[in-house]
Amino acid sequence: MTSKMMKAAVVREFGKPLAIECAPVPVPGPGEILVKVVACGVCHTDLHAAEGDWPVKPLPPFIPGHEVAGIVAALGPGVTEFKEGDAVGVAWLHDACLRCEYCETGWETLCEHQHNTGYSCNGGFAEYVIASAAFAARLPAGVDFAEIAPILCAGVTTYKGLKETEARPGEWVAISGVGGLGHVAIQYAKAMGLKVIALDVAAAKLDLARQVGADLALDARSEDTVEKVLKATSGGAHGVLVTAVSPPAFSQALGMVRRKGTVSLVGLPPGNFSMPIFDVVLKRITVRGSIVGTRRDLDEALAFAAEGRVRAEIAKAPLDDVNDIFAGLKAGTIEGRTVLDIAGEVSNLAARNQSAA
Amino acid sequence: MTSKMMKAAVVREFGKPLAIECAPVPVPGPGEILVKVVACGVCHTDLHAAEGDWPVKPLPPFIPGHEVAGIVAALGPGVTEFKEGDAVGVAWLHDACLRCEYCETGWETLCEHQHNTGYSCNGGFAEYVIASAAFAARLPAGVDFAEIAPILCAGVTTYKGLKETEARPGEWVAISGVGGLGHVAIQYAKAMGLKVIALDVAAAKLDLARQVGADLALDARSEDTVEKVLKATSGGAHGVLVTAVSPPAFSQALGMVRRKGTVSLVGLPPGNFSMPIFDVVLKRITVRGSIVGTRRDLDEALAFAAEGRVRAEIAKAPLDDVNDIFAGLKAGTIEGRTVLDIAGEVSNLAARNQSAA
Amino acid sequence: MTSKMMKAAVVREFGKPLAIECAPVPVPGPGEILVKVVACGVCHTDLHAAEGDWPVKPLPPFIPGHEVAGIVAALGPGVTEFKEGDAVGVAWLHDACLRCEYCETGWETLCEHQHNTGYSCNGGFAEYVIASAAFAARLPAGVDFAEIAPILCAGVTTYKGLKETEARPGEWVAISGVGGLGHVAIQYAKAMGLKVIALDVAAAKLDLARQVGADLALDARSEDTVEKVLKATSGGAHGVLVTAVSPPAFSQALGMVRRKGTVSLVGLPPGNFSMPIFDVVLKRITVRGSIVGTRRDLDEALAFAAEGRVRAEIAKAPLDDVNDIFAGLKAGTIEGRTVLDIAGEVSNLAARNQSAA
Amino acid sequence: MTSKMMKAAVVREFGKPLAIECAPVPVPGPGEILVKVVACGVCHTDLHAAEGDWPVKPLPPFIPGHEVAGIVAALGPGVTEFKEGDAVGVAWLHDACLRCEYCETGWETLCEHQHNTGYSCNGGFAEYVIASAAFAARLPAGVDFAEIAPILCAGVTTYKGLKETEARPGEWVAISGVGGLGHVAIQYAKAMGLKVIALDVAAAKLDLARQVGADLALDARSEDTVEKVLKATSGGAHGVLVTAVSPPAFSQALGMVRRKGTVSLVGLPPGNFSMPIFDVVLKRITVRGSIVGTRRDLDEALAFAAEGRVRAEIAKAPLDDVNDIFAGLKAGTIEGRTVLDIAGEVSNLAARNQSAA
Ligand SMILES: [Zn+2]
Ligand SMILES: [Zn+2]
Ligand SMILES: [Zn+2]
Ligand SMILES: [Zn+2]
Ligand SMILES: [Zn+2]
Ligand SMILES: [Zn+2]
Ligand SMILES: [Zn+2]
Ligand SMILES: [Zn+2]
Repeated sequence: MTSKMMKAAVVREFGKPLAIECAPVPVPGPGEILVKVVACGVCHTDLHAAEGDWPVKPLPPFIPGHEVAGIVAALGPGVTEFKEGDAVGVAWLHDACLRCEYCETGWETLCEHQHNTGYSCNGGFAEYVIASAAFAARLPAGVDFAEIAPILCAGVTTYKGLKETEARPGEWVAISGVGGLGHVAIQYAKAMGLKVIALDVAAAKLDLARQVGADLALDARSEDTVEKVLKATSGGAHGVLVTAVSPPAFSQALGMVRRKGTVSLVGLPPGNFSMPIFDVVLKRITVRGSIVGTRRDLDEALAFAAEGRVRAEIAKAPLDDVNDIFAGLKAGTIEGRTVLDIAGEVSNLAARNQSAA
Repeated sequence: MTSKMMKAAVVREFGKPLAIECAPVPVPGPGEILVKVVACGVCHTDLHAAEGDWPVKPLPPFIPGHEVAGIVAALGPGVTEFKEGDAVGVAWLHDACLRCEYCETGWETLCEHQHNTGYSCNGGFAEYVIASAAFAARLPAGVDFAEIAPILCAGVTTYKGLKETEARPGEWVAISGVGGLGHVAIQYAKAMGLKVIALDVAAAKLDLARQVGADLALDARSEDTVEKVLKATSGGAHGVLVTAVSPPAFSQALGMVRRKGTVSLVGLPPGNFSMPIFDVVLKRITVRGSIVGTRRDLDEALAFAAEGRVRAEIAKAPLDDVNDIFAGLKAGTIEGRTVLDIAGEVSNLAARNQSAA
Repeated sequence: MTSKMMKAAVVREFGKPLAIECAPVPVPGPGEILVKVVACGVCHTDLHAAEGDWPVKPLPPFIPGHEVAGIVAALGPGVTEFKEGDAVGVAWLHDACLRCEYCETGWETLCEHQHNTGYSCNGGFAEYVIASAAFAARLPAGVDFAEIAPILCAGVTTYKGLKETEARPGEWVAISGVGGLGHVAIQYAKAMGLKVIALDVAAAKLDLARQVGADLALDARSEDTVEKVLKATSGGAHGVLVTAVSPPAFSQALGMVRRKGTVSLVGLPPGNFSMPIFDVVLKRITVRGSIVGTRRDLDEALAFAAEGRVRAEIAKAPLDDVNDIFAGLKAGTIEGRTVLDIAGEVSNLAARNQSAA
Repeated sequence: MTSKMMKAAVVREFGKPLAIECAPVPVPGPGEILVKVVACGVCHTDLHAAEGDWPVKPLPPFIPGHEVAGIVAALGPGVTEFKEGDAVGVAWLHDACLRCEYCETGWETLCEHQHNTGYSCNGGFAEYVIASAAFAARLPAGVDFAEIAPILCAGVTTYKGLKETEARPGEWVAISGVGGLGHVAIQYAKAMGLKVIALDVAAAKLDLARQVGADLALDARSEDTVEKVLKATSGGAHGVLVTAVSPPAFSQALGMVRRKGTVSLVGLPPGNFSMPIFDVVLKRITVRGSIVGTRRDLDEALAFAAEGRVRAEIAKAPLDDVNDIFAGLKAGTIEGRTVLDIAGEVSNLAARNQSAA
């Protein structure tokens, strides 16, 4: 028996271009579902995976991609949560143990037994991907697959990061970075009743920030940026979300956070950053890391998107362009979010195959 | 009219020995009380004040001392909270505005209009000190003044720092440093239902830690300390209180905190410390500064002491020894807390004066 | 020396019409300010005061009114928070002790030593009223006095009541009653990022609810109201705010709250209500009373209004109409909020006096 | 093939004595384990189940019992959490869906798809019981099965109920009722750093309360009980745990709770109770139901017991006595907790069978 085959972008060696290959369509095991990928966003983490940047590395060959929007194509044994044809999302948290202290308290993102889509499990840069039925997200009816894809990582990550600032409606958050994460973060913050200051170094991104609702958008490189934030907020932002954690962004965040405020960090840069203890103590500042979001966070993040309150700016691209997109991410030239339009690929491929026959 | 005079230890110049002088007994203004100092603890902050270590410096000449236990000697106009003879404590937070967002929400320790005892106001290294009636603490009946004095700063600071870890009864806290702060912190933690690991580099301090209730006391310099903490706590301490913030202590704290745990920092070292962002994000670690405690924190801290659940190890010394004590603090040779036995001084002084007459 | 005189509506005897009288303009004591009343809203509590409905009664003669918007006319000794000409609000919480466990933790609304405007202190149904400088609210610049007046009680009460439901942005609240409180509650809820179901028995009020932003407005008397709420919210509202606490409204609230949800009660009806313990336990329901709001709550509530996100529907009336307005409140025929246009009175009075002279 | 048989106490008809029968030993399905029951506590809920007291009733014939301590005897397909011979506990929450908003946020006790041991699933009044591997509790090593059994329901229920009061270490809780629940509640409260007032109507129970650590034990029927609580706590208990919810106990709880305090209700009496709205609003009282505890709550509750900080007073009885025990529960003559010593039964039974052979 010949397996059904699919197209996929595969990391064969860290730091090398992904190979566009034919691979067998995987078969869902117990508790798993097979998802036909319609769209898959490209995230910085995919780049880190492909380059082997982090201490615990994935094992090549593997398929990246963890902002998957697709359709249930087949059910593994024992699956009752979904049926074929359901619209589903597959996110970074592929599965977790459901039995540790984190899983049992709604913090499965901290499970030490978790697997990650596009990292320790194959991801969505392919026509099909396996998901865990207990972790796949139900997508709202009538969803635009390409538009919803970035919510699966960029959306939920910033939404959770904002929750972790503990800023309340009517209070100020500063959002550092208006890239793929930041421009959705601004929209989540507004939907959460927050007042928003956006910071970036590019004029185009500051314009985007204003368009999507920032109350104020400031050039992060100006000498008086911190001062302007302190003034606009009468003492500092209650929360600061750093979407692009770098030493200067971190340092600036600590300068613009209000007494008793929280700096929430998303993103996983390597290296150590410098923290001024005196200020952190005297102002009772909280610095907190935040990593993606739980299944509930994801459901909430998707609901905001489904209601039209949050929409990612996307550019669609075919799977074949994945190496160019990675190059753009490295160069910092990508605006908003690039989403691989995989189902379009499939149709074209199908069409080509038919004409070749 | 000649003012009544008192003995006081005065900082005349940063970095120079304090001068033991005769100074006029101050007169309480509206809302103030005059407190006859019975005992006053010596805190590291007093040393920082006398050396002018911090960015915002006190203005010499001034009298340090902010762990004051004494007796109300006179009331300023309009004071109704106290009467002469009441036992009171005077802490670091001399007064605050009571009208800013911090004061109005029970965070007066963050008030930007606050004054600080022994820093921007004269403190308790003297026979008398002025306190604000709205901020002086009511001491429990039958209190031992010398024993309660360290609760006014060391006690409340560590109690608050422990609260800020958000560790719950039955969970683990690691307490880094078993000095003047740490040895009371251990007792607060036990009274709060926490399980405690104490860390220090001196065997005598580890013994003290065990005596005052630590479930485990570890040499902070051993290579496998972090590993031992992770094992004893099955994954890391839910909270870590760093009482002696130094780069290695901070780094160790980040290594031994549990996923989703909090590292609470008390103490005000100058300088920047290094924080590994990757770990902080991936483990959702919270790092939080904590500064002294509010009036309510102080009342709660005093109540634990009054019930005998927390007791500071003290050595009494006369006011004249203050420069020697400072030298000991610098050298790190002080065990527990040194408390200036000011009323003893007074009696002796009185006795001497009488016999001289 | 003759005192300056003012016009005032005075309760001389419980249950009798208020007397419109001439009374001496009060003189501010230490820490107090004299406020020239521009507008004062009429609240159900004023009616309860005038009728002596509650266990602890005010002592006639007294002047009701605790939704005061006005201008500082004179400062008592020691006042530094305000200067003459400042726009201020005077709310139900006239003053509190600032030194008890509630005052010290940002819960001065629970102070057992508080005084209440228009109840234990004279209120704003008069040309002038005394306020405590520590408790008077700073009104935003350029405020419309008549429009802001209801925020001082109806606004802050519902805003706080919503906070007390602990519903988070994106979640559902049901607001029971679309009267003077409910119609502003809907707007606060929307500004806080909540989804809102409004319930009332009058079609006109349901229309108003929709106009001010309710996502759904339901007739509270329909047989299937609870069912509709459960369906629209997929299991019940996360929070329920009962603005007009009556036995049937309370009972309905318990039926429509989600598992783990909170029913927040504002308003002070006499009597005991019936609570089904089985359901409350099995669904882990929280029932919580909420009384006005703290100074911070009030500042926050005012900020939402100043930004135009919340606006009370008001009808202006002269002070002379106060007894008619009370009759309307009793009959339930008042839509939105009636605000006494006191400064208009003054001008007219001044005009009349001048022409009479 | 003949099934293996076991002895069990079976409800054949509501309100009738349980039948002691021979029943087939059940076979664990996927994700399930077979537990050899060593001990099983008898809880009021078992009585309610056997009498069919609640709106949603179990379907006879069924076996009650949900305080099961036993040993894993066999594993169903796919079980990896346990191995044969492991000591396990089986509690009221037999299983839940793990996928709803409650299960995903650590509130599986509110899952609408849950099954309950001894109610909708057969329970532990038998030699064997089926448990869900995802929900069975790991018992601490070296545990006394009979002593730990009551922790599975009485223990975790009161521990959770205390957590739900939100009382903090150093604060006061009043515990109403010193029966099977109350006497362990007192110990949990002390272990959590709380100060405890116990209330009951029986002198023997008040003595027991004092023995297990209550700071104060009061006759609930005295006229001045509320007054005494208010005095001892300087204003009321921060939390009140009502372990035996009855109209007078509930009413008394509302009288003795501090402003801003919480009354936590455990137990599932039918009927409606009367709540004085005026007081609840004016004092910002929170009334909250609490139902058993989650898997994490249970682990925490077991840990306190394993450390010897909480111990249930038990009387052992053979399974045959179950109807007498029910009679005692109804009559209110049971002190502490009665635990069925099932394994003892088995041995005896085995012995008898052998001698009969
Ligand atoms: Zn990502
Ligand atoms: Zn897990
Ligand atoms: Zn100090
Ligand atoms: Zn202040
Ligand atoms: Zn007060
Ligand atoms: Zn009012
Ligand atoms: Zn569930
Ligand atoms: Zn039970």
